[in-house]
Amino acid sequence: MDDRIKRHAEVLVDWSARIEAGDDVVLAVSPGAHELAVATAELLGERGANLVTTRSSGEIARAYLSAHDDEFDADPAHELALYENADAYLSLGGGHNTSATADVPAERRQAHAKAREGVREARMDTDWVSTVHPTRSLAQQAGMAYEEYQEFVYDAVLRDWDSLADEMDRMKDLLDEGSEVRLVSANTDLTMSIDERTAVNSCATVAYDSHNLPSGEVFTAPYGTTGHVEFDVPMTIHGKRVRDVSLTFEDGEVIEYDAGQNADVIGDVLDTDAGARRLGELGIGMNRGIDRFTDNILFDEKMGDTVHLALGRAYDANMPDGVAGNDSAVHVDLITDVSEDSRLEIDGETVQRNGRFRWEEGFE
Amino acid sequence: MDDRIKRHAEVLVDWSARIEAGDDVVLAVSPGAHELAVATAELLGERGANLVTTRSSGEIARAYLSAHDDEFDADPAHELALYENADAYLSLGGGHNTSATADVPAERRQAHAKAREGVREARMDTDWVSTVHPTRSLAQQAGMAYEEYQEFVYDAVLRDWDSLADEMDRMKDLLDEGSEVRLVSANTDLTMSIDERTAVNSCATVAYDSHNLPSGEVFTAPYGTTGHVEFDVPMTIHGKRVRDVSLTFEDGEVIEYDAGQNADVIGDVLDTDAGARRLGELGIGMNRGIDRFTDNILFDEKMGDTVHLALGRAYDANMPDGVAGNDSAVHVDLITDVSEDSRLEIDGETVQRNGRFRWEEGFE
Repeated sequence: MDDRIKRHAEVLVDWSARIEAGDDVVLAVSPGAHELAVATAELLGERGANLVTTRSSGEIARAYLSAHDDEFDADPAHELALYENADAYLSLGGGHNTSATADVPAERRQAHAKAREGVREARMDTDWVSTVHPTRSLAQQAGMAYEEYQEFVYDAVLRDWDSLADEMDRMKDLLDEGSEVRLVSANTDLTMSIDERTAVNSCATVAYDSHNLPSGEVFTAPYGTTGHVEFDVPMTIHGKRVRDVSLTFEDGEVIEYDAGQNADVIGDVLDTDAGARRLGELGIGMNRGIDRFTDNILFDEKMGDTVHLALGRAYDANMPDGVAGNDSAVHVDLITDVSEDSRLEIDGETVQRNGRFRWEEGFE
Repeated sequence: MDDRIKRHAEVLVDWSARIEAGDDVVLAVSPGAHELAVATAELLGERGANLVTTRSSGEIARAYLSAHDDEFDADPAHELALYENADAYLSLGGGHNTSATADVPAERRQAHAKAREGVREARMDTDWVSTVHPTRSLAQQAGMAYEEYQEFVYDAVLRDWDSLADEMDRMKDLLDEGSEVRLVSANTDLTMSIDERTAVNSCATVAYDSHNLPSGEVFTAPYGTTGHVEFDVPMTIHGKRVRDVSLTFEDGEVIEYDAGQNADVIGDVLDTDAGARRLGELGIGMNRGIDRFTDNILFDEKMGDTVHLALGRAYDANMPDGVAGNDSAVHVDLITDVSEDSRLEIDGETVQRNGRFRWEEGFE
């Protein structure tokens, strides 16, 4: 086995999920992630954890959803019980076709997600971590050769996480002390409140309430958003390519939207529920091991010199105790490149300009 | 998709497991069984069942077990809760290597199984069904070409189960009314009591307490066995090839054993515990869609014109209420061909001769 796969599993089990003896772990394996699953299972055995392995197959999901009607039972007891009794949930992405569910009607997908909100919450209450194993399908999505893509993934995952965590703490401190964020670039001028919100230093470990591997972003939960924003990074949302999304906000809500391609996908997202029209997240990408867009949100939103905003659900970790964040069945990230002609202000002070943070050389 | 896969899924979901709207189903998918999983998921969606998909991978199990020590936590809460809350468990066998766990020490495997007896019981309390998808690995084990093996599997699975169930009911009635069974062939003359035992018509549906697909056997729990029996069908037991096993019984217990190859495997089985020296099952194979031995017990023991006896554990379904059957940690099936020079008597009356049942043409 490729030694990098073993090191990936080590980062996942030890740095990210902090698995200990006796932990009840659900390992969710995509069809192309078998090797990473084997390496992970070996470590889970070594640590004395208990293992249930599930299969995350887009083709199985498509077959099931396509044949089902729009009425789904709420929170099936067996699935709910599995996650309510789990300590950790490790999701190993990496299938054979990123468009495997492309022809499932959006309403069907939404109805299914909505009916299983309790299951999702129970899963999110565990020490969950999402990662991907590099597959040929993901390489294709990234427009890269297979070996090239493997390098890309391991550059992003096999980092010195301790030292990146220190750097990200600086950004977290700025956001925690600030009340208002303004994002300005060629066609964007957007203002968001972040008062009383706590930023999360997302350095790929549950110990920091960070659940993606790779990670490398600092995020918070904005509200009262006003202004206009354009997202110049193309994305695949619900299996469809979406480009040049623009959103106009008033009093925290989207009042206008458009896109250069597949605008209806954004319309579907916004129509999911009331919370889908509000922002759930403002994230600042700081992982410079990620040096290009690969049409995969797990990597794109962590890329150094990008900012992303998510429509929908906010994370509890950003909220004051006892205050509920924006609630929605969806959480859809949209990304904008801030490496040129851009600035990010906190309470009127520029903290990032053209991709340089204010503590970095070249900022002035 | 091959139409036979869809028909297999239909038999599994509708005839075997009797899935209804709202059922909480666990679908356990082996690495080579993806297509059958897709066809099954489609039907589960159509029926309005709720789906959790698990992955049954020998390689993942091997990695986990090999790295673990011999101390396993008893009945992990998440796994137990999953099955305690499930209505049905559908296991789709068919991997890429039937020897995937060959180098896991037997004690490790046993310790793991023992620690998870509660999980096994919870799974057995659901409407569980085991079937296999034909893979190249299983074709190889059967010594058959891939296409040839597919034909073989679908001949066994895609039967007119209603009509086979009717025929098997005749055999069940004969066994239920009888007190003593005698099996006679060239080197065999064995007598067993079956008084007060209830035969199970195993016609591949939970509605008849039958959990294998294919099935096609009628079985009961014999006792007081006396005489000599030879098993001319080769088997793989605990990973070793065993041929021409012979057993001599007195007062229900094995007093002598031998085999043409790997006799020590039989010795190990008999030494497991006291119950391992007694019979737990007499089964009469009646599925004539199975026309050859393939070194896979799921098929071999159901083959028409065979009889099998199992050393060890008896099934509760054969016992009168409140009476415990033969107890043992093992249940090892041994098969004999009764298509020639053989007869099966119940209370002195011949019910099967040279592979013909007494209600069939050519019996006299």
